[in-house]
Amino acid sequence: MTLNEKFRALQTKNAPGQEVRQNLGDINTIMIGKKIDGAPVDFSHGDVDAFPPTPNADTIWKEGFIRGASQAYTEYRGSADIRNKLADKLGKFTGQQIDANSELIITPGTQGALFLALGSTVTNGTKVAVVEPDYFANRKLVKFFGGEILPISLNYKDSQHENIPDLNQIEEAFKSGAKAFVFSTPNNPTGLVYSKNAINKIATLAATHNVTLIVDQLYSRMLYSGEEYTHLCSCGVQLENLITIMGPSKTESLSGFRLGVAFGTPKLIERMESLQAIVSLRAAGYNQAALYSWFEEPPGWIENRVKEHESIRDELLKIFRAGNLHTATPQAGSYLFLKLPPLSVDLHTFIRLLRYQANIIVTPGTEFDPSCNDSLRLNFSQDPSAALSAAKRIVKMTEIYST
Amino acid sequence: MTLNEKFRALQTKNAPGQEVRQNLGDINTIMIGKKIDGAPVDFSHGDVDAFPPTPNADTIWKEGFIRGASQAYTEYRGSADIRNKLADKLGKFTGQQIDANSELIITPGTQGALFLALGSTVTNGTKVAVVEPDYFANRKLVKFFGGEILPISLNYKDSQHENIPDLNQIEEAFKSGAKAFVFSTPNNPTGLVYSKNAINKIATLAATHNVTLIVDQLYSRMLYSGEEYTHLCSCGVQLENLITIMGPSKTESLSGFRLGVAFGTPKLIERMESLQAIVSLRAAGYNQAALYSWFEEPPGWIENRVKEHESIRDELLKIFRAGNLHTATPQAGSYLFLKLPPLSVDLHTFIRLLRYQANIIVTPGTEFDPSCNDSLRLNFSQDPSAALSAAKRIVKMTEIYST
Repeated sequence: MTLNEKFRALQTKNAPGQEVRQNLGDINTIMIGKKIDGAPVDFSHGDVDAFPPTPNADTIWKEGFIRGASQAYTEYRGSADIRNKLADKLGKFTGQQIDANSELIITPGTQGALFLALGSTVTNGTKVAVVEPDYFANRKLVKFFGGEILPISLNYKDSQHENIPDLNQIEEAFKSGAKAFVFSTPNNPTGLVYSKNAINKIATLAATHNVTLIVDQLYSRMLYSGEEYTHLCSCGVQLENLITIMGPSKTESLSGFRLGVAFGTPKLIERMESLQAIVSLRAAGYNQAALYSWFEEPPGWIENRVKEHESIRDELLKIFRAGNLHTATPQAGSYLFLKLPPLSVDLHTFIRLLRYQANIIVTPGTEFDPSCNDSLRLNFSQDPSAALSAAKRIVKMTEIYST
Repeated sequence: MTLNEKFRALQTKNAPGQEVRQNLGDINTIMIGKKIDGAPVDFSHGDVDAFPPTPNADTIWKEGFIRGASQAYTEYRGSADIRNKLADKLGKFTGQQIDANSELIITPGTQGALFLALGSTVTNGTKVAVVEPDYFANRKLVKFFGGEILPISLNYKDSQHENIPDLNQIEEAFKSGAKAFVFSTPNNPTGLVYSKNAINKIATLAATHNVTLIVDQLYSRMLYSGEEYTHLCSCGVQLENLITIMGPSKTESLSGFRLGVAFGTPKLIERMESLQAIVSLRAAGYNQAALYSWFEEPPGWIENRVKEHESIRDELLKIFRAGNLHTATPQAGSYLFLKLPPLSVDLHTFIRLLRYQANIIVTPGTEFDPSCNDSLRLNFSQDPSAALSAAKRIVKMTEIYST
């Protein structure tokens, strides 16, 4: 693969957050009707002004800054003291004991953790099972490292959530030589959670076929009422190679600190640290201090944050369903994946129109699955009234441009 | 190359800052004499307690934190407003106009910039000219991306600094198919600065042979009295592909923020951003704000910082030369590369002994050049009296273990 080909596969022009670099083109000649007024909403990521960082995150950062050299220059895998505390807290959260010295690394965001985990697992020709739709970087990372993607369907349009992901396809992929399987649960972009049965089956298949599992649990703390979450790392199946990824960027709104954590198999953590050393040395030293606040939020703070998001979710579902737009019901997290009706314009044009005509930024479904050219992802961690008003504008726009 | 081979080449156990993970082994059976008292000094990196960050770096960070969403979620290449200001300031510093929109990216440290620049230039089989000795990650990065190293001698032991690097070897490497050349000036680990003649010759050769140049100028602001610095980007030769890397981690002691900048050819900056998107999205958002303070230090602050380092350099040179230890005279930066006399123990054992017996951490020369197994690198950005006392202990240790 030439460098040009390699980088074509990485193109970011439709990636969330990069909309400002897009050219709107001859949008006026395509637009039907007038602009639709309403407060601008950027659904491409959560709004940390609407849902601010955990209390005192800045104060804890400042304490790290004052600590000076010991906080600025940590081991590449992160401060030993912070790793000790994280191992304890994440052990309790997941139900799996974690050794702080050998089984955990602090990374520059969960994106950083994914990069390191796949970089430590995938090389030229490695077959990797990748769920579609799933986090947009998973596919790109596998390609960048020279791997081959074995796609796994999520079956998220089924009414029975028990059927996600397609376990038969996973078994087939493992039998046909997959060396690794990467997926997110709660799933990004649908907000669906893998059931206990699915997790157990995946673990059992991985153990049988000796497949490395890389599981992105970024949103596992934002679980809605009545839902159950199964941590792969404590499901009881003995796995040779497992990396679990979490971070405080979403529920806790600490994205501006670029912090993530990966824990699991020591050999892989060791590799991830070696790679981190040539990628960016370490997660920014002073920022690491903010992890002291993680899982130490004031009583009720997390519960309230989850409740507020569940309420936005419920209202959005009402609006979209009244507008005949299909979406699976997110069980966790703040993503919602919306299926559009047949439109007179293609997906990317519709998205440009949403931005120009309705003041709304969304992410195209094709970022998550090349075949999802009829879907949008929304991050609904937004000011509630702005989000609901924007949702109504989305419905209106689908009516204007319906075939 | 298997993953095991790939990661063996990346091993970090002797990398600066990782000493805490080393096993001291049976050191007591090797040690000659008693422990030598003295305040511990970690020469593996600068001491930001001895030379603290630029004034108000924390206040400027806090302003970014308060700005909220717009600072937390920037474009992957970094905040547009900060890029505008940097393009202006770096344009003035280097003498080369920079377009903030297309020619500059903010990265997680200069390490991040190097990773992105090499990742955008090197793929399987790409031949890359690499100076030896030079920054330890350069060689590792080329190998990680599947490239082939064409080594270039620095000739730093010559008394004539004009002779660094070996220009004939560079011409040979370019003629034999090198697609890229990566080097640091001021050189890490020797502190030597490439002359105007060397820079012009490198640029001319690169233009002739269409070689991408990646130049790490991290230490270019800490230039000692009487020295001259030539910026490759403004040397007057029209280059097809050039990336210049700088950052505020060293002279300005902002390493704990993990910030760097790369500027140059738009096509390469575009690739670097695409890669950054799957590596860690962006340099931590709030931290980017600290770049507002860069090149805006209070009057005299930088001059004073350079003077203080020059004074430590001069004192260290006296001590080492009185002890018959060879070192080139650093012209810039805070590194000093020390050649050891023949010893009764090997380099890595001597370094373990320095740590155990004399309370001193240094980095082995082999990190910078596989053949430099008789040298140590010191970062002398340390408390002056602690550094001088430690230098005397190093001389004493070479006497104890001399053959």
